[in-house]
Amino acid sequence: MKTFDFLSDDRLRQQVEFLALIDRMKQVLRQNLVADASRRENDAEHSWHMAVTAMVLSEYATEPVDIPKAAELALVHDLVEIYAGDTFAYDTVGYQDKAARETAAAERLFGSLPGTQGAELRAFWEEFEACDTPESRFANIMDRFQPLILNYLSGGHTWKTFDVHKPTILKRNEIIRTWSPQLWIAVNEILDQAVKEGLLKE
Amino acid sequence: MKTFDFLSDDRLRQQVEFLALIDRMKQVLRQNLVADASRRENDAEHSWHMAVTAMVLSEYATEPVDIPKAAELALVHDLVEIYAGDTFAYDTVGYQDKAARETAAAERLFGSLPGTQGAELRAFWEEFEACDTPESRFANIMDRFQPLILNYLSGGHTWKTFDVHKPTILKRNEIIRTWSPQLWIAVNEILDQAVKEGLLKE
Repeated sequence: MKTFDFLSDDRLRQQVEFLALIDRMKQVLRQNLVADASRRENDAEHSWHMAVTAMVLSEYATEPVDIPKAAELALVHDLVEIYAGDTFAYDTVGYQDKAARETAAAERLFGSLPGTQGAELRAFWEEFEACDTPESRFANIMDRFQPLILNYLSGGHTWKTFDVHKPTILKRNEIIRTWSPQLWIAVNEILDQAVKEGLLKE
Repeated sequence: MKTFDFLSDDRLRQQVEFLALIDRMKQVLRQNLVADASRRENDAEHSWHMAVTAMVLSEYATEPVDIPKAAELALVHDLVEIYAGDTFAYDTVGYQDKAARETAAAERLFGSLPGTQGAELRAFWEEFEACDTPESRFANIMDRFQPLILNYLSGGHTWKTFDVHKPTILKRNEIIRTWSPQLWIAVNEILDQAVKEGLLKE
């Protein structure tokens, strides 16, 4: 990969190198497909779609949420996967060392930014992971609801591939029940419809 | 495409249908390639990358900018291309009817959202296009700077393909000169380096 060594401002050079590096998000493939089932979705697309989902579904939070902030969390929540790779939601083995892999990735990734900027961006990622603020809760809800839409549209691709049944999905989406009862109804309606169509096992 | 007719809440159904529709952003291809030159970038990826670029380069605005708002503008600034298609920055013929095509697309796209939500999201797009607020100016700067990074990294692909020379690029990036002198220096350094490497004609 070419570098930006020729830039005269060293701080800006580090930032531009970071922006060049995160282009790799477009190559980190997720397990779910895009809506028309033509191919797997990548992390950049997922992050974008999730952030817009937060903007469109903002009214369904049960607590006051700073939506632009939640969108920002969505934009950076998967950056560590550039080094750590995507861990599929229902991959129990992968989840065993997910935290360790992602912490190492965060050191390397955010450490490449100048001054305090790496720590600031890392704090966004940590807030998302801790899921204990209104914004991170809402972003986490979007991180579950967006793939649900795609899984339904693409004919239950990941559910079938990994033989995931309805109770497992409900369990993973539990956070929606507590923090967005209206979306929880929709989650259940989507899953019930998927079962009815034979895309998902009861 | 499957629908979400089975959802019991009609307002939420319209919103989910909208979120399903905008998945098509992942299929709207731009002229520029991703950084490793392996394929063309799509609108979803571009919007994500541009929004993160706004977060990382926030300090280079010469006026106070609400960065999360600028990121939101980035997220939705190209949505009309779902119906209007991508108009390449240096396509003078395409630019003749760009406004008309995109206005028709906006009617159709934002009109599918319930209540006032379509108008609210459309206002974001119009603000970006008008480019007369600090947030829209900064988002427009990011809309130019992000592809510049990719064009340089991918060996000047679009510059070569469309025989675009340095003065044309400088003209298109003029907004950066006024509103971000530090990034303007970087723009010039990147283009000079591209000329030196034979990726771009003087």
